[in-house]
Amino acid sequence: MIVDTSSIAGYTIFREEASDAAPDLSKARSVHPLDQLSIEEIRAAAHLIRQHADPKVVKFNCLTLHEPRKLEYAAFRAGRGPRPDRRAFAIVLERGTSDVAEVVVNLTRLKVENWKPVADVAPTLTLEDLDVCERVAIADPRVIEACREIGITDMAKVFIDAWAIGFDNRWGMERRLQQGIVYYRNSPNDNQYAHPLDFSVVVDTEREEVLAVDIRHVDGKRVPVPLREHNYLPEFVADTFVHDKLKPIDITQPQGVSFSMNGSELTWAGYKMHIGFNYREGIVISDVSMYDHVEQRDRALFNRISVVEMVVPYGNPNPPHQRKHAFDVGEYGTGLMTNSLKLGCDCKGVIHYIDAIMTTSSGEPAVVKNAICIHEEDNGLLYKHTDYRDGTVTSARDRKLIVSQIITAANYEYAFYHTFTLDGTYKLEIKLTGMLNTYLLHPSETAAPFGTEVAPGLDAHNHQHIFSLRVDPEIDGPRNTVVQSDAVPADDPVGSPGNLYGNGFYCKKTPLLTAKQGAVSYCHETSRSWDITNPNRLNPSSKKPVAYKILNNNCPALLSKPGSNVWKRAAFARESLWVVPYRDHELFPAGDYVCQSTGELGHAHNQAVLDWVERDEPIDNTDIVCYIQFGLTHFPRTEDFPVMPAEPVSVMLRASNFFEKNPALWVPPTAILGDSVSRDAFGKGDAKGTCCSGSLNVSSKL
Amino acid sequence: MIVDTSSIAGYTIFREEASDAAPDLSKARSVHPLDQLSIEEIRAAAHLIRQHADPKVVKFNCLTLHEPRKLEYAAFRAGRGPRPDRRAFAIVLERGTSDVAEVVVNLTRLKVENWKPVADVAPTLTLEDLDVCERVAIADPRVIEACREIGITDMAKVFIDAWAIGFDNRWGMERRLQQGIVYYRNSPNDNQYAHPLDFSVVVDTEREEVLAVDIRHVDGKRVPVPLREHNYLPEFVADTFVHDKLKPIDITQPQGVSFSMNGSELTWAGYKMHIGFNYREGIVISDVSMYDHVEQRDRALFNRISVVEMVVPYGNPNPPHQRKHAFDVGEYGTGLMTNSLKLGCDCKGVIHYIDAIMTTSSGEPAVVKNAICIHEEDNGLLYKHTDYRDGTVTSARDRKLIVSQIITAANYEYAFYHTFTLDGTYKLEIKLTGMLNTYLLHPSETAAPFGTEVAPGLDAHNHQHIFSLRVDPEIDGPRNTVVQSDAVPADDPVGSPGNLYGNGFYCKKTPLLTAKQGAVSYCHETSRSWDITNPNRLNPSSKKPVAYKILNNNCPALLSKPGSNVWKRAAFARESLWVVPYRDHELFPAGDYVCQSTGELGHAHNQAVLDWVERDEPIDNTDIVCYIQFGLTHFPRTEDFPVMPAEPVSVMLRASNFFEKNPALWVPPTAILGDSVSRDAFGKGDAKGTCCSGSLNVSSKL
Repeated sequence: MIVDTSSIAGYTIFREEASDAAPDLSKARSVHPLDQLSIEEIRAAAHLIRQHADPKVVKFNCLTLHEPRKLEYAAFRAGRGPRPDRRAFAIVLERGTSDVAEVVVNLTRLKVENWKPVADVAPTLTLEDLDVCERVAIADPRVIEACREIGITDMAKVFIDAWAIGFDNRWGMERRLQQGIVYYRNSPNDNQYAHPLDFSVVVDTEREEVLAVDIRHVDGKRVPVPLREHNYLPEFVADTFVHDKLKPIDITQPQGVSFSMNGSELTWAGYKMHIGFNYREGIVISDVSMYDHVEQRDRALFNRISVVEMVVPYGNPNPPHQRKHAFDVGEYGTGLMTNSLKLGCDCKGVIHYIDAIMTTSSGEPAVVKNAICIHEEDNGLLYKHTDYRDGTVTSARDRKLIVSQIITAANYEYAFYHTFTLDGTYKLEIKLTGMLNTYLLHPSETAAPFGTEVAPGLDAHNHQHIFSLRVDPEIDGPRNTVVQSDAVPADDPVGSPGNLYGNGFYCKKTPLLTAKQGAVSYCHETSRSWDITNPNRLNPSSKKPVAYKILNNNCPALLSKPGSNVWKRAAFARESLWVVPYRDHELFPAGDYVCQSTGELGHAHNQAVLDWVERDEPIDNTDIVCYIQFGLTHFPRTEDFPVMPAEPVSVMLRASNFFEKNPALWVPPTAILGDSVSRDAFGKGDAKGTCCSGSLNVSSKL
Repeated sequence: MIVDTSSIAGYTIFREEASDAAPDLSKARSVHPLDQLSIEEIRAAAHLIRQHADPKVVKFNCLTLHEPRKLEYAAFRAGRGPRPDRRAFAIVLERGTSDVAEVVVNLTRLKVENWKPVADVAPTLTLEDLDVCERVAIADPRVIEACREIGITDMAKVFIDAWAIGFDNRWGMERRLQQGIVYYRNSPNDNQYAHPLDFSVVVDTEREEVLAVDIRHVDGKRVPVPLREHNYLPEFVADTFVHDKLKPIDITQPQGVSFSMNGSELTWAGYKMHIGFNYREGIVISDVSMYDHVEQRDRALFNRISVVEMVVPYGNPNPPHQRKHAFDVGEYGTGLMTNSLKLGCDCKGVIHYIDAIMTTSSGEPAVVKNAICIHEEDNGLLYKHTDYRDGTVTSARDRKLIVSQIITAANYEYAFYHTFTLDGTYKLEIKLTGMLNTYLLHPSETAAPFGTEVAPGLDAHNHQHIFSLRVDPEIDGPRNTVVQSDAVPADDPVGSPGNLYGNGFYCKKTPLLTAKQGAVSYCHETSRSWDITNPNRLNPSSKKPVAYKILNNNCPALLSKPGSNVWKRAAFARESLWVVPYRDHELFPAGDYVCQSTGELGHAHNQAVLDWVERDEPIDNTDIVCYIQFGLTHFPRTEDFPVMPAEPVSVMLRASNFFEKNPALWVPPTAILGDSVSRDAFGKGDAKGTCCSGSLNVSSKL
């Protein structure tokens, strides 16, 4: 019997009463090998892990799908091999300690296959871990005293946002550390980011104790709490809303969506893909293919797409702000922080939702309802052309398929939109919104140059957001090569026979052959891009290898200086692109264990992208993986306060001599229009005068 | 009496019967000073010009609004000065010659105020001019013979796209030249770009004669016509359309649009602006302001926004392809080439259209119905934040106001979307679609490196599209300064007291003080941007000058070599940004007369941006104008054939410490959601559980 209850925002926790019955995994035997672990599978895996650990008691850090090895899965997918066993992967701690072990459970054979203690690592901070920080700190006498000193006696008004520590050399890996950033609220839903306090705390997550209360003094004195309120919630500012100014824009799909789902397998407009999800990466899109109407077959594009890391380094050099450089994927998990989405608020139209299934620290299944949104949007013109001689118009409309999730990372929100369009383009758009992280200014201080005073006395520090999109390509087959493309003037000088008028230019192509060559940066001067090619297949017209082009000019330089801690820990953010050979279960460019990582090379249990590059293995015509970094540098504006208008940033992969012609020619045109003007020269009056979707659209007379 | 007829694709020409009655301009006296010339005004101006010229006969090249001088108009707008006289500006040629004069007609006083002959210039090629080229060439015996030699005897199957000549040093400014690029069609609507021929022509527009037929021989022989068809029009490929795969996405606005129009003045969501149009720039947006809910007043943003130039240089160095570098604004006019738009095809929802009013060569009013589309679109999240402690969600939806037009430039289509969003952002998005310009390959040739063989034997040459967006800013007042912003690491070394952990970074600000300093390029390494500031007004919180930020990382380097003709003629495309002082009627950075221009500095009647820069006048805290270049380098793909999937490129101006806080807080939230989870610490259960727009949106079960 299942007792359905809730404990952490957005989670539904499925608790069962104690039972000795064997877990029923009959359904699991036929699920897609890349599907999330089911509630039953989680329960079974947790049971086996607890049994194996007994008499020790474990705290589950994660319990998630252990994806099958690539070749094994590919053989099964192609009908050439057996169904891979279902496996779970867990990271567990011995309760009350920071002793970590990695566990692999075979769910097909119902046994623990591997139990590997891992030294000198600190796993992801779960929402439950973060809860510890606030709970413990708020009750700590030193914290209470620190508040009292600045006139705060009601501790119910004190709120502590738990963050990964970044680094703090007062303690080492023997403790799982967090820092707490302290705020005040005047009333229950008051915006705490208007009232940052002048101290922070460090907490040991496992021993549940406060290790330090770091108070900043200016001229030997405490800094007064900024008390002025800055709210945007309706309960505070509803009287400032202007109603009826924006008339409704209704988006309806009377015949429903154009995609179909078979479990987690999606089919849409010639695309096929599998939608997965895990606690760390959030959405994982696998087995992406597109139907080629010329070749009349599905052609593979990507094995696997996911956002595998991000870092948000803050640029204020004054301690303790150097600790603020959150790795939201590796330190917190974009799965764990994901929102339960709501119809008509996060997306409009007809929405298909998928729930996320994760695990609590006690090994219970935890479900976020409606974690993944799948929907379509109109995308304007797919193409249009008018024959200017007779006014014949032909146009078609494009649309998007969007697979999205939104996460809340304390103050910030990130909305991830994995977007596919009819021309074969994949675009990851991320919208940044939510609240700025703020700090208080003493009257003697200025926010500049390392921040902006977004409201009197409130300093929002400069920061960057750099994401890592991992694309495991399968461009028309498993063996690919990345070729760097630079737009350059012709080599011959102006006036020479080869470039008489000096207008010649071309695309200079440089294949990246080994992992060290595969570490490359964007170059604005040459509008650099990268083609993921399949050198084994030539486009019959262009005679070039079929390819998908990476378009990424949104990759800011990592601004932390060489040699700095951030520069080491976030080494992945130093380059726009890394290309390395594929290895099973090698996913995370800042390491599997990002919390408290040092970024030093050669860690026995925690290899990161520089370690992979150091091997300098071949990446030419082999199974490769691309890590694409993009993002933005954010100098806060007053307009970002108290809540930030969504700011988009994106990266794109586009067919590049992959298809023999425009792959969307199967889409019926919206408009086939000819006006009454005759063509003088030839064949006049043949154009059709129809516009297919005229009835719903209205011409406005104002 | 008006006879309504049509002569050129998309135009409605208003002809009137001969009359001696005085023109009735009574309505014109009260129109907005920036409104397009009305049909009556055009008729009156043409009448006055013809009278003035008599007995000479003029050919009208353009007849358009002569905008009032800035200070005069500003005084009128502010209620401090009289209504400016309505004036028309015309460029006329003496019929049958290339003698050019500029004429200013005062429509308030009904007289020609200025008639200025202009030497050594060639004005814009109108659609009527382009028509001459095809008509004359197709009847020319040398052209007929050139066709016969390659087996084409039916001249009704030969089509000649007229282009500006670019440059051809066989002739000078004594002739108005065009080049004709020759194609073949198998059947009336067959795609001619599948059948380029191996010769081109040069035509004198005014004398209507063919000057040259330039035939390319390979090994002394003609190149065979590529005869294979590549079509996308329904009459050829309707059987390949897949119906019912894409279910309808309906966008409806049951209460109509949220903007209102007073003539050409638009009000929307706190924005005010005037929508103008002319034959050359197309859409002109003036007097843009936004209501500030904190200061409770309209605040000026931009005096005038328009796309004032673009260039499309092709990168094949073999003659005659060096001549292909179209300036679609200056050589053809994005007004003249604009499409008449159709409901539900170009845009969806409720649309407000504005007609474009232009002039034929004989001085008759010519109207393009529905040339400007104004509509709104949903724009996803405006902001969202979840309080992770209790799951309280507040979010609002953004929307766009889009003022758009689409032009057909022979083979290519450009769709211009001037877009405003609720957070005060202006974005110009241009979508490129239509057909690739193609050339034929001899079997002994390859398309690489200067082009792509997009279908067997068809070479689509490399090219660039570089646009110039002119922004005449009025950031909270008439005197502005542009400040260059570079994201850089802190100056202090890692480990020093000022940058102990090496994470410090800041925005380095460099004010641009004179026009020579105002010629600047994007820098990727520092994520460069530019703030148009008003140094006379400080943001009360940030203490920084109020500003709008130019975000433009889509500005490819001009790839024609220094010293080349394109490099000289398209000098405007050498920099990402030019800032110069404002001067009345100084608008076009490639010159007022772009056709056949040489790009040499110091032309008496045709100054371009380098001339303006050469003056090196102050641009600090004065009335300035920004020319923002952006675009893309296009290495054609097979996917772009036979019709190109729309490719977007954009540039953005965003409030930057302009408003004291998020300027969209007046927008009622879509979602105010709290779940049943209580907050442990404080104030639990206060969140409201409503979602405002749930009824139309549907959850899909698949």
